[in-house]
Amino acid sequence: NEAVKVNGYTCKDSTQMTPEDFYFQGLASAAATNTSTGSVVTGANVEKLPGLNTLGLSMSRIDYAPNGLNPPHVHPRASEIIFVLEGQLYVGFVTTAGKLMAKHINKGEIFVFPKGLLHFQKNVANTPASVIAAFDSQLPGTQSIVASLFGALPDDILVKSFQLKTKQVQRIKSRYPAKK
Amino acid sequence: NEAVKVNGYTCKDSTQMTPEDFYFQGLASAAATNTSTGSVVTGANVEKLPGLNTLGLSMSRIDYAPNGLNPPHVHPRASEIIFVLEGQLYVGFVTTAGKLMAKHINKGEIFVFPKGLLHFQKNVANTPASVIAAFDSQLPGTQSIVASLFGALPDDILVKSFQLKTKQVQRIKSRYPAKK
Amino acid sequence: NEAVKVNGYTCKDSTQMTPEDFYFQGLASAAATNTSTGSVVTGANVEKLPGLNTLGLSMSRIDYAPNGLNPPHVHPRASEIIFVLEGQLYVGFVTTAGKLMAKHINKGEIFVFPKGLLHFQKNVANTPASVIAAFDSQLPGTQSIVASLFGALPDDILVKSFQLKTKQVQRIKSRYPAKK
Amino acid sequence: NEAVKVNGYTCKDSTQMTPEDFYFQGLASAAATNTSTGSVVTGANVEKLPGLNTLGLSMSRIDYAPNGLNPPHVHPRASEIIFVLEGQLYVGFVTTAGKLMAKHINKGEIFVFPKGLLHFQKNVANTPASVIAAFDSQLPGTQSIVASLFGALPDDILVKSFQLKTKQVQRIKSRYPAKK
Amino acid sequence: NEAVKVNGYTCKDSTQMTPEDFYFQGLASAAATNTSTGSVVTGANVEKLPGLNTLGLSMSRIDYAPNGLNPPHVHPRASEIIFVLEGQLYVGFVTTAGKLMAKHINKGEIFVFPKGLLHFQKNVANTPASVIAAFDSQLPGTQSIVASLFGALPDDILVKSFQLKTKQVQRIKSRYPAKK
Amino acid sequence: NEAVKVNGYTCKDSTQMTPEDFYFQGLASAAATNTSTGSVVTGANVEKLPGLNTLGLSMSRIDYAPNGLNPPHVHPRASEIIFVLEGQLYVGFVTTAGKLMAKHINKGEIFVFPKGLLHFQKNVANTPASVIAAFDSQLPGTQSIVASLFGALPDDILVKSFQLKTKQVQRIKSRYPAKK
Repeated sequence: NEAVKVNGYTCKDSTQMTPEDFYFQGLASAAATNTSTGSVVTGANVEKLPGLNTLGLSMSRIDYAPNGLNPPHVHPRASEIIFVLEGQLYVGFVTTAGKLMAKHINKGEIFVFPKGLLHFQKNVANTPASVIAAFDSQLPGTQSIVASLFGALPDDILVKSFQLKTKQVQRIKSRYPAKK
Repeated sequence: NEAVKVNGYTCKDSTQMTPEDFYFQGLASAAATNTSTGSVVTGANVEKLPGLNTLGLSMSRIDYAPNGLNPPHVHPRASEIIFVLEGQLYVGFVTTAGKLMAKHINKGEIFVFPKGLLHFQKNVANTPASVIAAFDSQLPGTQSIVASLFGALPDDILVKSFQLKTKQVQRIKSRYPAKK
Repeated sequence: NEAVKVNGYTCKDSTQMTPEDFYFQGLASAAATNTSTGSVVTGANVEKLPGLNTLGLSMSRIDYAPNGLNPPHVHPRASEIIFVLEGQLYVGFVTTAGKLMAKHINKGEIFVFPKGLLHFQKNVANTPASVIAAFDSQLPGTQSIVASLFGALPDDILVKSFQLKTKQVQRIKSRYPAKK
Repeated sequence: NEAVKVNGYTCKDSTQMTPEDFYFQGLASAAATNTSTGSVVTGANVEKLPGLNTLGLSMSRIDYAPNGLNPPHVHPRASEIIFVLEGQLYVGFVTTAGKLMAKHINKGEIFVFPKGLLHFQKNVANTPASVIAAFDSQLPGTQSIVASLFGALPDDILVKSFQLKTKQVQRIKSRYPAKK
Repeated sequence: NEAVKVNGYTCKDSTQMTPEDFYFQGLASAAATNTSTGSVVTGANVEKLPGLNTLGLSMSRIDYAPNGLNPPHVHPRASEIIFVLEGQLYVGFVTTAGKLMAKHINKGEIFVFPKGLLHFQKNVANTPASVIAAFDSQLPGTQSIVASLFGALPDDILVKSFQLKTKQVQRIKSRYPAKK
Repeated sequence: NEAVKVNGYTCKDSTQMTPEDFYFQGLASAAATNTSTGSVVTGANVEKLPGLNTLGLSMSRIDYAPNGLNPPHVHPRASEIIFVLEGQLYVGFVTTAGKLMAKHINKGEIFVFPKGLLHFQKNVANTPASVIAAFDSQLPGTQSIVASLFGALPDDILVKSFQLKTKQVQRIKSRYPAKK
């Protein structure tokens, strides 16, 4: 009676599956967006929806305060498509050639962010906004770039990378306490 | 100046890409649902969104008339997650063990249909409904089961499969003119 | 001394493997074909041949009574090739465009059924027939369409999908007791 | 009107496909086995069966003269399962740990050769034999080991590898004229 | 006589391949490291080594000036292993949980950077250094983070992401002229 | 507190990872090359570098005595690129068409061996040589061809394959004691 694991997640015997394994209601309402950047991501991946195990896709909902920003980040294991539920956004990604591919998009429109590339979304209106995002991975992972840089890297790497002064780097770092 | 093709689709040089290659507005409004089953699927796959080429995901919007049905079908190349934009649906799939995994779902809720399995969605309210569907393929393909069976298979296969009379089979077939 | 599992199946240490892990004799003789449809599928997949684990292929043998039918079904995780051991068959699949691709094939001939598409084989002679089928999955799965529809879906979905009367649906359903 | 290619093979538009694209009769009869080793492989891969393109599987038929040998070889891109159509064979592969996994198999029995490993089949009876082989690649490739070694490698590599004398190496090489 | 393309790259017929298709000498000597960050990456991917097409791996050489830095970057399509040819480096990556995994490594030692994660290498000695890097993609792609952010994103996104003043952002931007 | 396994290897929780999981110093110095063939392979795969699990790549170091040979072998699960650290080598592989693709390569040069094909490297100088090899698998596996043939296969298969006399076969076999 040891659970069988596949990909590190429990793989239920088909006689024990229930419809609840394939269902999630956690994306139904907007999350509170009073965060430092004015955006919140709510995931619906294999950690919350066990039926996604081995299937190769997942979803998230992103809510934005007025003028809120989902700051530049990378998903190491997935491409992403967003569908605007509400609001007006300016969204984009940067290609490996360093070009910005960005656009204003509105309710009902979709935009694609290719796998592993730096991207962002910004609410450009004075009202809340929200999107549904789909990923081609059951657990896409997210690396928030500014928090990763200034929450994890040593001062000298940041000073040299950004060509900022140590004091400037430390001021930005003070907002991102390092993880242990 | 011959276009380079990958997967059979044109692969633009990165210097020629534009944000429009990653954008689509065709899912923004509900399609007319006065069809025989009361549902319409609008795809946003690599055929409409060239930037999806090689990325492994796509979207669709499905609109349902009051009590409309998206009848049993299979996507041969993808799993699917739906997010309910509006309405109340009864949705489900059948496992390879022959069990129904089905549930009533409401606005904002999501449900997963594993790759290659028979599934359906039914609007259970007297008002229109719509969902956004995500797929882990740039071109998932769809095989509508009743139309494929009765629009393509010979009478004797259908008679024996369903254990119906030839006349009954022909009556159903009359609604599905064969493709040539 | 806990068995290591990969894909949910035990992965033997190479020092403990034996030739029997890669061998199976269960396809050597025809199964009894006195079933309702006149066909029987005998699988040789990872559940019976542990050495197939991680290898991405498997086999089946299908035996057909005179005029027997392997009714329309889908393999959610594999394409299939059949080789006719004995007999004369009419075989085919339906494309996502709804077209029938079908052919009469004889002993020693082969036919391909692409992944996730509805297909069937019918013995068109008054003598038994049999084929060997190969799949590009260690566990391709099978969804028999009529049994899945009429053994699992609610009456109203079937009535609307087939545009049959409830009584007609219930009559077909009586042959397919629902799985719990 | 330029043909679209996928994987280097023409990818027909679905409106132009015919059942013949998925059908092959070239495995129906035994090939002449009066070769130097007493075996002949007849392939049914994507080069002969265009419908296999992108599907990830293929077949071969192997015919053996009495006591014929399919000498040690490797398929660089596929695992293999064989099903014995006729005869008695001694078949096996060598693991990466250098152990032989071999067995006598008879009509109707199957045996698995994992991807990329050295394997062989020998007819151990005084009557002809034949098998059907399935591969998890549309074009598995074959590298016959003795012919590759002695038809392609320089003398000194062979002398040192086998610790044979140059004359012995040249005698074996004389049977394998180098490809240019 | 049209070249067959696979993945967008010419796929030579095997009769036309030469050993040169699988060979590259461009990594043999150190590149000039008098760049702004004191490091230079020389790639040996499918664009330079046509024989890598479809093989799923490639290499690079990275040379570092004394105290030179390969600033934080991401490979969207590959993991990476480096082997130190010469010198002493401080190298690391940031996990999706925001933790730094970093270490001082010396000649002959190796370190792994998982796919899609932010990573860097810094020469910590007053002498030149160099590494060989291997990737599990024939064309891994590179996104240099600071150049992508400050060479491509609009001021307001950067101001809000870094919580810098517009002037500070513009000062950093002046070093990264935008790509058109 | 049972360790979670993925691919048969322990998958640490991200809170327990350390930089040492991604680091290996075992390739830093040359191994003793006084072996029968004059070469030694030292692996840096998932068995030694747990952080490689799921990443799809690994490395090896190969050291060669003066005139040493890494005799013909196959990696069943990976392509390989070598980078010459020191020395002059003659390296090559045999295509499935039986052609030799070989070249003399020197310090700093690279050469590619496609997946599953027979290949070798020979030190052609009177001084030691060494290379770094990269693979697109976390555990590529190696099958040394002469040892596999003469250490594992029965006499009659070898006699017939090489068209040698039994005595000659047994003489070669005496150098390769069979694995049990």
